[in-house]
Amino acid sequence: MNSLIVKQVNTFKKHHENRGRILINCPDQPGIVAAVSDFLYSQGANIIESNQYSTNPSGGTFFIRVEFECPNLKEKERSISKDFTEVANKFSMKWKLACVSEIKKIAIFVSKELHCLQELLWEWQSGDLITDISLVISNHEAARVTVEALNIPFYYIPASKENRLHAESEQLKILAENNIDLIVLARYMQILTPSFVKTYENQIINIHHSFLPAFIGAKPYEQAYKRGVKLIGATSHYVTNDLDEGPIIEQDIMRVDHRDKIENLKKIGASIERSVLATAIKWHLEDRIIVHGNKTIVFS
Amino acid sequence: MNSLIVKQVNTFKKHHENRGRILINCPDQPGIVAAVSDFLYSQGANIIESNQYSTNPSGGTFFIRVEFECPNLKEKERSISKDFTEVANKFSMKWKLACVSEIKKIAIFVSKELHCLQELLWEWQSGDLITDISLVISNHEAARVTVEALNIPFYYIPASKENRLHAESEQLKILAENNIDLIVLARYMQILTPSFVKTYENQIINIHHSFLPAFIGAKPYEQAYKRGVKLIGATSHYVTNDLDEGPIIEQDIMRVDHRDKIENLKKIGASIERSVLATAIKWHLEDRIIVHGNKTIVFS
Amino acid sequence: MNSLIVKQVNTFKKHHENRGRILINCPDQPGIVAAVSDFLYSQGANIIESNQYSTNPSGGTFFIRVEFECPNLKEKERSISKDFTEVANKFSMKWKLACVSEIKKIAIFVSKELHCLQELLWEWQSGDLITDISLVISNHEAARVTVEALNIPFYYIPASKENRLHAESEQLKILAENNIDLIVLARYMQILTPSFVKTYENQIINIHHSFLPAFIGAKPYEQAYKRGVKLIGATSHYVTNDLDEGPIIEQDIMRVDHRDKIENLKKIGASIERSVLATAIKWHLEDRIIVHGNKTIVFS
Amino acid sequence: MNSLIVKQVNTFKKHHENRGRILINCPDQPGIVAAVSDFLYSQGANIIESNQYSTNPSGGTFFIRVEFECPNLKEKERSISKDFTEVANKFSMKWKLACVSEIKKIAIFVSKELHCLQELLWEWQSGDLITDISLVISNHEAARVTVEALNIPFYYIPASKENRLHAESEQLKILAENNIDLIVLARYMQILTPSFVKTYENQIINIHHSFLPAFIGAKPYEQAYKRGVKLIGATSHYVTNDLDEGPIIEQDIMRVDHRDKIENLKKIGASIERSVLATAIKWHLEDRIIVHGNKTIVFS
Repeated sequence: MNSLIVKQVNTFKKHHENRGRILINCPDQPGIVAAVSDFLYSQGANIIESNQYSTNPSGGTFFIRVEFECPNLKEKERSISKDFTEVANKFSMKWKLACVSEIKKIAIFVSKELHCLQELLWEWQSGDLITDISLVISNHEAARVTVEALNIPFYYIPASKENRLHAESEQLKILAENNIDLIVLARYMQILTPSFVKTYENQIINIHHSFLPAFIGAKPYEQAYKRGVKLIGATSHYVTNDLDEGPIIEQDIMRVDHRDKIENLKKIGASIERSVLATAIKWHLEDRIIVHGNKTIVFS
Repeated sequence: MNSLIVKQVNTFKKHHENRGRILINCPDQPGIVAAVSDFLYSQGANIIESNQYSTNPSGGTFFIRVEFECPNLKEKERSISKDFTEVANKFSMKWKLACVSEIKKIAIFVSKELHCLQELLWEWQSGDLITDISLVISNHEAARVTVEALNIPFYYIPASKENRLHAESEQLKILAENNIDLIVLARYMQILTPSFVKTYENQIINIHHSFLPAFIGAKPYEQAYKRGVKLIGATSHYVTNDLDEGPIIEQDIMRVDHRDKIENLKKIGASIERSVLATAIKWHLEDRIIVHGNKTIVFS
Repeated sequence: MNSLIVKQVNTFKKHHENRGRILINCPDQPGIVAAVSDFLYSQGANIIESNQYSTNPSGGTFFIRVEFECPNLKEKERSISKDFTEVANKFSMKWKLACVSEIKKIAIFVSKELHCLQELLWEWQSGDLITDISLVISNHEAARVTVEALNIPFYYIPASKENRLHAESEQLKILAENNIDLIVLARYMQILTPSFVKTYENQIINIHHSFLPAFIGAKPYEQAYKRGVKLIGATSHYVTNDLDEGPIIEQDIMRVDHRDKIENLKKIGASIERSVLATAIKWHLEDRIIVHGNKTIVFS
Repeated sequence: MNSLIVKQVNTFKKHHENRGRILINCPDQPGIVAAVSDFLYSQGANIIESNQYSTNPSGGTFFIRVEFECPNLKEKERSISKDFTEVANKFSMKWKLACVSEIKKIAIFVSKELHCLQELLWEWQSGDLITDISLVISNHEAARVTVEALNIPFYYIPASKENRLHAESEQLKILAENNIDLIVLARYMQILTPSFVKTYENQIINIHHSFLPAFIGAKPYEQAYKRGVKLIGATSHYVTNDLDEGPIIEQDIMRVDHRDKIENLKKIGASIERSVLATAIKWHLEDRIIVHGNKTIVFS
């Protein structure tokens, strides 16, 4: 990272050294909020933000995200986790504790279209995206100059239908070595194998150049142009093995009209893709998304 | 029509008694705008608004809509039409001349869900929709009270897959007798036959309860809920023989999230349907739409 | 109320007979959420929705709104209130308990422009606004027919600068007799006295025909037209003694351009006023607004 | 300019070598459109886009913008201008002919906040802003590194209330030497003298960090925070001698709520400022804006 970004990140970490987040889902029943807030109080924590949702208060699934300040969080993290197990077991919770000052590590995958990558780098440089962009992997050389100018390691790994497994094994090695927390497919035009996807379940975010489920598949802007649509959209989602069918995180649209040729639709689409992908990544980094079946709960 | 609406319409007609519109499409070539504006000038008309579009300035299709003030328009309408034929022939134009003071006659088709009908009636009463709602046709009795309270004739014509041809012959008779200019399918849940559609080509506007082409077909809100979309949309379009595939006029969306159950998606959807349908109708009434192939040029 | 609305309201009440809401503000400190959720759990209540906000986690003001299901809520309401006092005192809480099935009573004040009144009546009839519109008070006769057609009592009370005190005493009498919970100024063009405002503190919602604080005062649309603005807005706010300066609840805007004459700006403005006022009222009815100084916390 | 941008600009120029625009305003009367389109036809030009507006068809001011393709435009430019004078005189027109391939030269003025400058540089690099950013002038050194990295000349000219005249004389010299067409105040925090403004009448675009006319003057975000607004806006306008009172070009807003501290309002505001300023500049570069009194006609 360059020195300005390092400074921004360090300031952020210092401001959030005692800030934690707990994300929980479990069968709904009375007493969950009381149990969680009692526990946090017993640890000396002050709740800063709390969001919850239940698919059905009588017997559905309950989701809660609590953000809190806890003195000496880093030293107490292990004991908190250990102590919380008792509460968690009582309510059959799946849960996750995160220290906000542990900055997440991102790997960006990109092919030849660089607008989404560029947006992420800009937001990162301007301090709007607090993360560690640890590396960029591409099956093309197009992004190298831009990436290396920011002192981010760039890995050129040729990838195609033919050498998929080989390419993925290289990628997985690099990802593991760098302890990557989140993979961002910023217009990466290769399909990932089920095995790769499984390794990073709910940790791969893709941007789809359409308002799903419309125009799935190839050449969406050509399809949209032919159909004469009045809106163009984009969708960010977690990657699953069903192509373009993973849990949707965010969608947005912009207005177009009869004057917009395919080239223009692509330009407008690119602009939506940029913002929709950046939003999804921010929510993920702030632990605001819980995947439930093929949907997301977003506590934005 | 009740007296308040009659008064609004009469005021409108008086203000627009010399207001005309000409809509043209023809192969693009230099000199079209000059020829049309020369012609209007020779008739003593002043151009108020002019919109044009060309699919391709070198050899595409050219579209123009001109709105103008012309003293004594009503008396001169025939001679203008006759005189314009010469210009039109020279450029191989398809064209249409409209006197704004000739209020268009609308027939609304509706089934059991009344929100779109209700919206149109409200806008009509409040003077936001200047038209003659001549009659309402329904395959249910649900709308009768609302419609007749406004002194609009209501025709109950049972319609189903089985009696389609019979029902349509009744409908067509009523439409013809009332010189209907535009049919609005305001959540009318019956399919129209090709023969019916052909009789009113580009004169039937439908509202589709989805952001086409996503969720074509039955139960779109159930589909949208299952897919976990973050946006809900609606589409208004001219009716062709391809179900839900006619030229799109207008689309819009609203944001939803994980908390929205199917019931709520329907409510939100209904709200978008209302505004998207009303917008499409207004554009049609103001002669702002030209159908070109399976697309629309909208001079809004 | 007419029978359809009565039916809707009764269905709503039945579905929410055990639904309660508690709104709290107090000095922030650790343990508040734990105390409140423990209390609700001890009463057998299940938390359905919970929103909180702190102006400053170290020593600011803390706000929380909890919606819950509690078996036999109506019978237990008093004992719950009594029992909660202990918790409340411990944390120096200001608080309010509401039974959702106790439908709030609204009085609408209106002058000659009826679009906001009309919107509220439409939403009420269509079941989008669950409330008891108990009466309408006006200093003009313009609204009488519309209001009485829905069997809502209409009170014509002439009001002007000169007879303000007399008019208000009449109004206050009617409001008290009808146990009014919320007064909606739906384009009511009279100023209220400090004494009146104090009687219904944070219970009077006004719609201001501008995007405050721009164009305060008379003829905002003329001002906006002259200034050549590209956006038109509206603001709903609680009424205080500073004219148009009370806590803002909601604002919205629409795009305009050079073609929009004053008449059109007014029409567009009226449309925003309608939706902005309706939104503010819904949030108030759902106890989603807490007034804090001259601002609002809205848990939407 | 760096080589990529040079290439983009050259491609643009080549595609538009025969593309011209004529902007006209004159007293409204019948025959203007006919005269203009006849003239263009006589020159062999094909009209590509045409927009018009009249403040009042019976005796107001008429505005028209015509974009056309004319073979050998560059060679014929002078003779076209000469020949058009006759038409112009007949209708008392003020008019301007522009060759699209003559790329406009921009000077950006900036102080310490760089987000607007940064946005313009990004859009310029990505080919979304086709212009010649000839130089940057600043009263601070903050922007130097960023600007010079793109090979754009950077001029540090200290400016304050005290040395205003001296600083402006330096600035004017540089602007004149570089044949600057448009000055962009991208958060330049110095007031310009009437004499400076007059030299570049309707050629200076400013971004105001507020939704004018709300929060004119210092610390708008502090004011907005204190007032508890629910929307934050920004305004781009031409600079006149009335501070922040020049003709508005574009405005936009974003939604905020009680959780947004002043810092966050500023961040959100900065994001709107960026897009609103960029939009205004694009419209200016495409000759889409006509200033009329203290307002703009924007043919977007």
